[in-house]
Amino acid sequence: MSVDGGPTPAAGRSSAVGSPTAGSSTAGGRPSGVDGRPPAADGGAEDLARYLRGQATDFLRALRRHRESGVEDASAPAMALRRTARRISGTLHTFRPLLDATWSDELRTELAWLSGTLAREHACTERLDRLLNALQRLAGSTAPVPAQASASPTGQLTVGAAKAGALLDRQLTLARTRAHSTALQALGSSRFHAVADNVAVLASDVPLRRDAAAHRLAPFAADVEARLADAVQTLPLVRAGHPYNAEALMHGLSAETAPETQDAPWHQARLLLRLHRYAQEALGIRDFDPRLLTASRALDRHRDAAEAAAAASSAARTPRIAPATAYALGVLHADQRHEVEAARFAFKGAWQRSGSSSAVSLP
Amino acid sequence: MSVDGGPTPAAGRSSAVGSPTAGSSTAGGRPSGVDGRPPAADGGAEDLARYLRGQATDFLRALRRHRESGVEDASAPAMALRRTARRISGTLHTFRPLLDATWSDELRTELAWLSGTLAREHACTERLDRLLNALQRLAGSTAPVPAQASASPTGQLTVGAAKAGALLDRQLTLARTRAHSTALQALGSSRFHAVADNVAVLASDVPLRRDAAAHRLAPFAADVEARLADAVQTLPLVRAGHPYNAEALMHGLSAETAPETQDAPWHQARLLLRLHRYAQEALGIRDFDPRLLTASRALDRHRDAAEAAAAASSAARTPRIAPATAYALGVLHADQRHEVEAARFAFKGAWQRSGSSSAVSLP
Repeated sequence: MSVDGGPTPAAGRSSAVGSPTAGSSTAGGRPSGVDGRPPAADGGAEDLARYLRGQATDFLRALRRHRESGVEDASAPAMALRRTARRISGTLHTFRPLLDATWSDELRTELAWLSGTLAREHACTERLDRLLNALQRLAGSTAPVPAQASASPTGQLTVGAAKAGALLDRQLTLARTRAHSTALQALGSSRFHAVADNVAVLASDVPLRRDAAAHRLAPFAADVEARLADAVQTLPLVRAGHPYNAEALMHGLSAETAPETQDAPWHQARLLLRLHRYAQEALGIRDFDPRLLTASRALDRHRDAAEAAAAASSAARTPRIAPATAYALGVLHADQRHEVEAARFAFKGAWQRSGSSSAVSLP
Repeated sequence: MSVDGGPTPAAGRSSAVGSPTAGSSTAGGRPSGVDGRPPAADGGAEDLARYLRGQATDFLRALRRHRESGVEDASAPAMALRRTARRISGTLHTFRPLLDATWSDELRTELAWLSGTLAREHACTERLDRLLNALQRLAGSTAPVPAQASASPTGQLTVGAAKAGALLDRQLTLARTRAHSTALQALGSSRFHAVADNVAVLASDVPLRRDAAAHRLAPFAADVEARLADAVQTLPLVRAGHPYNAEALMHGLSAETAPETQDAPWHQARLLLRLHRYAQEALGIRDFDPRLLTASRALDRHRDAAEAAAAASSAARTPRIAPATAYALGVLHADQRHEVEAARFAFKGAWQRSGSSSAVSLP
C-alpha cells in the first residue's frame, strides 16, 4: 500500500533529512560508510520494503516456532523474535520519512514494548551467570559455577562469597521467574496480537509514502552514522584509552546515582551503533566492519557489567545480611565496575582501529 | 682496619662471585649496566670504603638531627636514618666478600631491624592517607580527606563509606601510635646504641678484608643485576602487560592467603631493584636510568596498594560492623587490588622501555 503526503523530516534531524545529500557524505554526494568504505548498495524504497518484508517474515516464523515449542526450548524462538523486532523497529525509525509516519511510529512503540518484555528473562539469566562466574574467578577457583551456592560445596569460596552467591541466586532467579511469567502473559495478550497483525501487514505490503520512490536510502543511513559519530565524540575516549584510569568506580561509594549518569552516554552509543548496523543491512551491506562489531560487543559487555554491578550493590542493601556477605558484594560490585572500565578501553581501541573517529559529523 | 682471610663466596651465588668476570658481563669482561650502558666507574675497595663512610656519616648526622628535633619535626631525620640504614645494609650485602663477613652480617641484621622499626610509623600514615583518598575518589568527591571521617561532614560519602573511613582511621591511627612508641623505645635502647657505635666505626674505618684491594666492585654489582633479571623473569609480565587482566583480584574472595603468594615475587623484585640501585651508587654511578626509577616507583606503589588492600579486608573482619561498612570495605579492597594490577602494568612498561628485559642473566 501507499500513503499520501510527502516525506516528513525525521524527528530532531530535520536539516539532514530535508536535504538528503547532507550528513556524512563525500564531495561526490555518495555517503561513505562509517568504516570508510562506500556502501555496497545505494538502494531505494523498494530495497527498504524488501528488507522489512524479510524481517517481518522472520518474525512471524519465529512466532510460529515459539508457539510450537515446549517450555524448555522456547529460548531460541524468543531470541529470534527479539532480534527481528529490534531490526524492524530500528529500520522504521531510520527510514521514517519514507513510511506512513503514524502507522510506523505506533508499531515501533509496540515493538519496543515487546522486545523489552522478551529481553528481561534472558537478561536475568545472563546476569546471574556473569555474577556467579565472577565470584568463582574472585575465589581463584576453576570449578564449575554452583547452581545453588548455598546448597552445594563451594570450593575455595569464603563464607561471605558463598552467601553472596546464594543471595544473588535467589534474587535473580525470582526476577527471572517473574520476567518469564510477564513474557508469557504478554505473548497471550490482545496487545501482542495487534502487534503480530501489524507485522503480518509489513510482511506482505510495506506502507510506503507515495513519493518514497523518489528517495535513496543512503542519506538516511548516513544520518544515523553521523548521529553515532556525534554520540561517540561526547564520550571521554582519551581517558578510556588510558588503562586503569579508575573512572568507572568513581562515585561507586557516592550517595548519588552517578554510575547511571556516567554510563548513559555509552549506552546511547551502543543503541546508535546497533541502529547503524541495521541501516547498513537495509542498504544490502552484509559485511559490516568486523572492527565495528568488536566495538559493538564491547558496548554490550559495558551494559552487562554495569547492570551486574548494580545488581550486586542492590543485593548488598538487602536487610539483615551478614557483614561478610556485604563485603563480598562490595568486592563483586567493584570487580564489575572494572569490567565496565575494561569494556570502555576495548571499545576505544576497536573504534579507533575502525577509523570511525575520523568520520565527518553533522554540524 | 683490615681483616685476615680471602674473599668468601656470596651466599647462593658462589659461581659468580668465585669468578668475578662472570655474571652479566660483555665479551670484553666489562659488565654492562642493566640499562645497557657501561658503568661510569669501575671502582675498587677504596671506592666501596668511601661510599660506606659517606653513608655512615649521613646516618650519624641524621641521628643527631633526630635527637635535637622535637616530636613534631622528627619525620625528616627518621626518613634519613631509614634511607642510610637501607643503603649501608644493602651495600654490606652486595659487597660482602670484600668485607669482614661476621662483623658486616651482624650489622646488616641490626640495620634491618632498625629500618623496619622506623618504617612502620611512616607506613601507617601513608596507608591511612591512601585509603581515605581512595574512599574520597570512590565517592567522586574532590573535598579534602577528612581527618576524622566520623566527626566531620563527609560530603558525598555514603554512610557505609563514612563509617569505613572512620574505622580505618581508628585502626591505623592506633597502629601508628604503637609504631611511634616502639620506634622511640628502639632509639633509646642499648641495642640501638650498639648499632650506632658500629656505624660510627664504619664512618671512620671500613672493615675491609686484607685482599679486598685485589678486587673490582663491578662483578659484584653485576651479580645483583643478574639476580634482578632472574627475579623479573619469573614474573607474569605478559599477563601484566594486558590491561584489565583481573589477575590481582584473583583469590580476592578465597579463603586462602593467595594474594600474599601472588604478590611475593613482585616484592622480591622490588627489593632487588633497590639493591641494584645502591650497588650502582657504590660504583659511583649517579645517573641511575630514570626508566628503572619509574619501574622502582611502580613496585613501591604495588607494595603500598597491596598492603592497603590487606588493611581494608582486615578492617572488614572487625566484629559487629554494619553491612554497609563491610560493603564499602569490599569496594575499597577491590579498588586497591586493581591499583596493584595497575602498578604491575606500569612496571612492565617501564622495565621493557629500560631494555632490561634483554639483559643477560646468569645460568
